[in-house]
Amino acid sequence: MSIEPRPYQTVAIVGAGSVGATLAYAALVRGAARRVVLYDVNRAKVTAEAADIGHGTEFMHQATIEGSDDIEICRNADIVVFTAGAKQDPGQSRMELAAKTVGLVQKVMPTLVDIAPDAVHMMVTNPVDVVTYAAQKVTGLPTHQIFGSGTVLDSSRLRYQISRECGVAVQNVHAYVLGEHGDSEVPIWSSASIGGVPLLEWLGPDGRPLFTDSVRERIGYDTVHAAYEIIEGKGATNYAVGLAVTRIIEAVLRNEHRVLPVSTLVNDDLLGIRDVCLSMPTIVDARGAVERLGIPMSSFELQRLHASAVALREAARSLGF
Amino acid sequence: MSIEPRPYQTVAIVGAGSVGATLAYAALVRGAARRVVLYDVNRAKVTAEAADIGHGTEFMHQATIEGSDDIEICRNADIVVFTAGAKQDPGQSRMELAAKTVGLVQKVMPTLVDIAPDAVHMMVTNPVDVVTYAAQKVTGLPTHQIFGSGTVLDSSRLRYQISRECGVAVQNVHAYVLGEHGDSEVPIWSSASIGGVPLLEWLGPDGRPLFTDSVRERIGYDTVHAAYEIIEGKGATNYAVGLAVTRIIEAVLRNEHRVLPVSTLVNDDLLGIRDVCLSMPTIVDARGAVERLGIPMSSFELQRLHASAVALREAARSLGF
Amino acid sequence: MSIEPRPYQTVAIVGAGSVGATLAYAALVRGAARRVVLYDVNRAKVTAEAADIGHGTEFMHQATIEGSDDIEICRNADIVVFTAGAKQDPGQSRMELAAKTVGLVQKVMPTLVDIAPDAVHMMVTNPVDVVTYAAQKVTGLPTHQIFGSGTVLDSSRLRYQISRECGVAVQNVHAYVLGEHGDSEVPIWSSASIGGVPLLEWLGPDGRPLFTDSVRERIGYDTVHAAYEIIEGKGATNYAVGLAVTRIIEAVLRNEHRVLPVSTLVNDDLLGIRDVCLSMPTIVDARGAVERLGIPMSSFELQRLHASAVALREAARSLGF
Amino acid sequence: MSIEPRPYQTVAIVGAGSVGATLAYAALVRGAARRVVLYDVNRAKVTAEAADIGHGTEFMHQATIEGSDDIEICRNADIVVFTAGAKQDPGQSRMELAAKTVGLVQKVMPTLVDIAPDAVHMMVTNPVDVVTYAAQKVTGLPTHQIFGSGTVLDSSRLRYQISRECGVAVQNVHAYVLGEHGDSEVPIWSSASIGGVPLLEWLGPDGRPLFTDSVRERIGYDTVHAAYEIIEGKGATNYAVGLAVTRIIEAVLRNEHRVLPVSTLVNDDLLGIRDVCLSMPTIVDARGAVERLGIPMSSFELQRLHASAVALREAARSLGF
Repeated sequence: MSIEPRPYQTVAIVGAGSVGATLAYAALVRGAARRVVLYDVNRAKVTAEAADIGHGTEFMHQATIEGSDDIEICRNADIVVFTAGAKQDPGQSRMELAAKTVGLVQKVMPTLVDIAPDAVHMMVTNPVDVVTYAAQKVTGLPTHQIFGSGTVLDSSRLRYQISRECGVAVQNVHAYVLGEHGDSEVPIWSSASIGGVPLLEWLGPDGRPLFTDSVRERIGYDTVHAAYEIIEGKGATNYAVGLAVTRIIEAVLRNEHRVLPVSTLVNDDLLGIRDVCLSMPTIVDARGAVERLGIPMSSFELQRLHASAVALREAARSLGF
Repeated sequence: MSIEPRPYQTVAIVGAGSVGATLAYAALVRGAARRVVLYDVNRAKVTAEAADIGHGTEFMHQATIEGSDDIEICRNADIVVFTAGAKQDPGQSRMELAAKTVGLVQKVMPTLVDIAPDAVHMMVTNPVDVVTYAAQKVTGLPTHQIFGSGTVLDSSRLRYQISRECGVAVQNVHAYVLGEHGDSEVPIWSSASIGGVPLLEWLGPDGRPLFTDSVRERIGYDTVHAAYEIIEGKGATNYAVGLAVTRIIEAVLRNEHRVLPVSTLVNDDLLGIRDVCLSMPTIVDARGAVERLGIPMSSFELQRLHASAVALREAARSLGF
Repeated sequence: MSIEPRPYQTVAIVGAGSVGATLAYAALVRGAARRVVLYDVNRAKVTAEAADIGHGTEFMHQATIEGSDDIEICRNADIVVFTAGAKQDPGQSRMELAAKTVGLVQKVMPTLVDIAPDAVHMMVTNPVDVVTYAAQKVTGLPTHQIFGSGTVLDSSRLRYQISRECGVAVQNVHAYVLGEHGDSEVPIWSSASIGGVPLLEWLGPDGRPLFTDSVRERIGYDTVHAAYEIIEGKGATNYAVGLAVTRIIEAVLRNEHRVLPVSTLVNDDLLGIRDVCLSMPTIVDARGAVERLGIPMSSFELQRLHASAVALREAARSLGF
Repeated sequence: MSIEPRPYQTVAIVGAGSVGATLAYAALVRGAARRVVLYDVNRAKVTAEAADIGHGTEFMHQATIEGSDDIEICRNADIVVFTAGAKQDPGQSRMELAAKTVGLVQKVMPTLVDIAPDAVHMMVTNPVDVVTYAAQKVTGLPTHQIFGSGTVLDSSRLRYQISRECGVAVQNVHAYVLGEHGDSEVPIWSSASIGGVPLLEWLGPDGRPLFTDSVRERIGYDTVHAAYEIIEGKGATNYAVGLAVTRIIEAVLRNEHRVLPVSTLVNDDLLGIRDVCLSMPTIVDARGAVERLGIPMSSFELQRLHASAVALREAARSLGF
């Protein structure tokens, strides 16, 4: 039959490593995506990952997945998610690795923008804020059209720990981690709330505030260091990040106008932060990351956010941006 | 508050390797399970896997996951899924590995049955049919209460390939792989159908039967060898098996009375198969694998099924069962 | 912001009666549709239905619904579902009602095709086969682009009853009702199966075939008369039809290539049926009802199908088609 | 086979009117419940509703529904939802109707508690706060075990309208309606927030606060009067309430510890409210409505809440409680 089917939404994932493949899996199992294409230079690997996921198609609502070592497979995707990273050589420093990863971004992003010019582009590869900054500069795309997965995962980890502390469903916990996705990130306690109750006023079983300085410090520490412990125990993180990025994909493909702490280029005189990519609560819809929100912060939190911006600015500069 | 919550259903997964952890993830993301406990002797690993999945809780409907190196965590589970296997030492043969795995089953299963006596027990570790046989003998559980994941995954692979060949949704393809989950497995073509049309009568675009001898041979070969190619490309299979086992878990926890080709102890004079575990279409519900169905087979298929049973019987005997 | 969001899929429902409104609800709750527009000439009613569903948006993944008495709301929909019918006046015969409904179709369909020319058009209003025939003639659309919901619901009812009889999950029961959606419809027993077992060979607890002549007759009777009993008890049917039509919508919007017994224009010399709309197993995808399958039937079933076609041909003729 | 399946969770719905039947449908379609039993004195109606929903089973994950005019069908349910109400006779005042409904509660609740003593009991029938108060007194159940659906629906309506006003996903809007489910209900603006931004600080496109006095007044008015308009347009409300109550059912069956504004018996000296059922944010889990939260309110809001409590106290007294 020669009738053309109307197009359906396609998610292109660049990189079939642990994060890329788990993301493809999570997006299809959740039904966030119906069609996923997976691109990786390692042909045997990308074909195997696509086949392993594809064999589960019977157990999904309706899904197709294809893997290829030809970047053409990403053509005309609705959203392109960049999870590819450079391999760390023995003895290589973190900074050398970042430089290599940025080099990869510089090499691959122009082609991706060329073949998927209308796509929303999301960077997931770490260090994600610097990678997003580089990608924005290299591609020249409007800032809403290219952004990083930022601290969506970190915020989820923070909420998970708050939830366990107070015994309320994580879906009722509203709290952000902002700034860098990394060591300088900032949990915003002052505006956090649980089921409508300000977190700082939440009472424990003894009738006294539960989230004392020391509890907040412990949770903040655990949130920042969660990845380290997981990496020590299993070598990498992939499951939660797969779901966090799937959540962002849903906001784009379903045009949700959803507030998510993604990483975008910030030039904000009010905040006093300029020329750096970092995470702030941002409305995400089919156009990408379209509008940054100003949420209340204590002066201590604002000060830490500035420090995070400075650290990220320096990291970018040291990589030549 | 001293009020006791009513109990909710618990899935216990034994083994936090690639299959066990992906299964936990798939079961929670799909909402098949609300509470998963993960047990593994490697404490750092099991804690890391549980944390990595737990951090994604915000993006699931409602879920809890705990990991522990204390088998007590499996107490009173509703279903226990055994994914643990022995590690292959260099130079070790497949048979030596199987013997070591069976040894592990002999060691761990009595404790699992002791602490979860009312659970349905499902074996996933390979060689799954022999492992299931050993587990049944070791535990003495009624045959419906202990079974193996069998050829649910193989059947899914077969349907996936049939679907791609004829261009019809995989959910409309009805076909089984029976017998061993392994080299001697048997695709049952004679009773396969697509949307109500017998597969052998399905016509291709040229108006002639699409599934010729050579097409069926190719698909059959690809189905049996799918795992090998995936293992070559990515080192292991985990995604599709995670979904296939999740499907079986759903049938048990939701008391679905669903027909699935799981591996159970067969003693069937009509079939001429005795004292061996292998996969046949079986009704699965909250009690486990409760009733085997007799589906039509060609004499060639039946002959291959006998051969599969003989191979499995010999494998069990060589392991001392 | 002046950035244009990329378009998302829209389901237009014509008629905000019990079926139309329940369909909107089912499609949104299931996540089959993200955007539904509801059109009805009764402004107060259509606004109220849209508001009542819209107030539940918080509990759906992401959804928008709008109601209007301006048909323009259906412009550029991806699928248009026609549920509007004429009101039965006291003393009016069934045939007079059908004539009035067909008049409504003749009046409204040209506008719908004009404002949604690329949509797939699905007729749900009864008598659905005659209404579909009329709509196809009036619009001149290609036969794949306009079809009726047919016997998808009747088949679901048949499977439900078979499932209750044999105690196996309804998802494992494969059986069609074909021909008219109405009194002359034909349950196809000869090719029905349960989990791979031919239905006619399914054994009951006594070891004898369960689906005897009298059991099949009873189930067939109950299937045809299910609607009458429900209408007697509650005045109308709406819940199951809402889900059945949602299922068809999913097949279209997700381009599923799914086999469903929808009603299309049949001109088939092999079957000996010409110039009539009735239900046969048909592949449904984003293009509509694209390909009819030939499933095996007994000569008795084929004879009844012919009779059904004759009845439908006469009904159409009596309405001037 | 004599093996007993382990029990699965049952939702009993009392009353097969528009709300009760739509609730059964929503709970099954969403997968919140797997087994629903529907009880109504009108046998033809309850049987028809159960059949109409049951015929759609094929399109749900796994579900069973039964309808009966024998209250025994509710035995040992995990949650019992009371949607039955007295019929309004011509010329009957609202107060007379309420008295009749309370009479129904007095008659039926003792039996329900007798046959489902461990169930969580939820009242949905209006006037829900007074009905809940009466049911609590009549049954003597602990206050956590019997509660009303309260203002979960009103809060959803408020959020829906806020979401439309600011263009952000409703899931990011956090706001409660508290007090009576009815005319004296109180939207709590002072602690409402949108994606972490206090609602009162949310800026419109012109850079000025969007939710001015007049906008809040309009939204508040529309929220309280939403039901009236819907009832005028379609005669009753059923869709959104079906989803709102399903949401509460999920919190109970999944033991979610979720914060929901349900109606419970309040005796709170701090709030200055005694001996009345009304809605406050409350943690709901498998034990029922277990803990009320204290959220910040302006003195104007607190004053209105008191007024709402007084109105409800008087209503209860006038009905003899």
